[in-house]
Amino acid sequence: MKICVVGLGLIGGSMAIDLKVKGHHIIGVDKSPSHIEKALELGLVDEVHDLNNALEEAEVVIIAVPVDAIEKVLVNVLDQMNPKAIAIDVGSTKQEICESVKTHNKRGRFVAAHPLAGTEFSGPTAAIPNLFSGKKNIICEEERIDEDALDTALQVFSEIGMTNIFMNPDNHDMHVAYVSHLSHVSAFTLGLTVLDIEKDEKQIFNLASTGFESTVRLAKSSPNTWASIFNKNSNHLAKALDNYISKLQEFKSAIENQDSEKMKALMDDANDIKRVLKGIKLNVVKLS
Amino acid sequence: MKICVVGLGLIGGSMAIDLKVKGHHIIGVDKSPSHIEKALELGLVDEVHDLNNALEEAEVVIIAVPVDAIEKVLVNVLDQMNPKAIAIDVGSTKQEICESVKTHNKRGRFVAAHPLAGTEFSGPTAAIPNLFSGKKNIICEEERIDEDALDTALQVFSEIGMTNIFMNPDNHDMHVAYVSHLSHVSAFTLGLTVLDIEKDEKQIFNLASTGFESTVRLAKSSPNTWASIFNKNSNHLAKALDNYISKLQEFKSAIENQDSEKMKALMDDANDIKRVLKGIKLNVVKLS
Repeated sequence: MKICVVGLGLIGGSMAIDLKVKGHHIIGVDKSPSHIEKALELGLVDEVHDLNNALEEAEVVIIAVPVDAIEKVLVNVLDQMNPKAIAIDVGSTKQEICESVKTHNKRGRFVAAHPLAGTEFSGPTAAIPNLFSGKKNIICEEERIDEDALDTALQVFSEIGMTNIFMNPDNHDMHVAYVSHLSHVSAFTLGLTVLDIEKDEKQIFNLASTGFESTVRLAKSSPNTWASIFNKNSNHLAKALDNYISKLQEFKSAIENQDSEKMKALMDDANDIKRVLKGIKLNVVKLS
Repeated sequence: MKICVVGLGLIGGSMAIDLKVKGHHIIGVDKSPSHIEKALELGLVDEVHDLNNALEEAEVVIIAVPVDAIEKVLVNVLDQMNPKAIAIDVGSTKQEICESVKTHNKRGRFVAAHPLAGTEFSGPTAAIPNLFSGKKNIICEEERIDEDALDTALQVFSEIGMTNIFMNPDNHDMHVAYVSHLSHVSAFTLGLTVLDIEKDEKQIFNLASTGFESTVRLAKSSPNTWASIFNKNSNHLAKALDNYISKLQEFKSAIENQDSEKMKALMDDANDIKRVLKGIKLNVVKLS
């Protein structure tokens, strides 16, 4: 198939790599000349075009721009693409994006998706093969998608090694606020706090062990990418943060009062995450 | 040397493994019969004894019990051990421990240490070889240690692959509150928050990607171990948590107000942690 990837960063670039290996012809589109140059140099795409030209031939259009730019690009793509083509967005929030094309006459050609994969790096140089292999992809409002369009999208995600979950957009945004976006705010803020107090940076270097490194890892993520995600999901995320902050205050009181029993009860409950994460690891092992 | 390891958990057990490989004779002591049995079965130690018998022959005594039990064990050990022997504690807090033996007539034979290494697992079965290799060890109040006792301790830490930093106990406790203990509270609380909201656990399993897994990893740590550390370091840790919570509130306001510029400024600052962590990685690479 001729697949147009709009946005050649971590997610778009990594999808391009895997789909190119599968024999598809990849047309890259990016508004940044340096991204275009890098994507060609790294061989992420077969050719590059501006969006209008790319849409003339594309059978599948993957929209992998920052979430705050998706709605505008998506409407352009639906308006101009071949009537039988399909558009897939891979943004990390879904509610407002789905809402924006609810009444579009090509709504049936659009697949709202969220492949749950990534690293803390960004841009075309962050693109890597097999980023999605063994991971989950979420598809929203499948009931609004034409049968053949959904089939094509499922084929694309299957070719990059993903399995699919179906969810409504509001549930999606709520769940990812807790399971993904909250982790990012928590890590960014941990980084800020430690940098703030440890004016003498040598002490961070000296004292940071693998525990700190793992907990703070996401603080290295792209501010542009995440500002637009946090914006789009501000309601659910603010609620998740209220919950998190209130539990931190509870934990802090237990520490201030040196109330070991209360601390242990909280940590015993938190330990239950082991059981859940074991499932994730098994999944990875099974597929590697 | 004849080395007695008191407390055969993750830290004591892992030190025992590495020191046994270096040809030392390891005498294990633990108040838990099941730990004793497991340590023998796993070959962590050469023999086991009760503390009094072990102290008759030990040249070096490593105290690796939970921090809230160290002071009592340490005084016993100093009182009863051979006058030329040395005692090393490896607890994660140092201020109160150092204070407790300030006027002991064998103060010069005691080395207050904190090897910065660990995993989220605990007990004798968590003990692994090379846990400490390439990592930093902190020694407090080196000015109070007899020269030969310090030399012996430095040799022990060098044999397990560590380099040493010297720091006063109060600075130690303040720095580790920020760089290690805060990460643990942050991860435990992230686990609690996500488990609380995601009553439908299948969604955590479905949606959790590597980002969440890395940020929440420390939530699997031992409640007993960490309750005693948090107790001992409650002042510094409560201050670190105040700072963290206040920054989270600032971040949350920016998200609620959809203030992208403010969010980006916070994340740009947090990104600076990259530079610091790069140092840590280089260090590991250099030594592996």
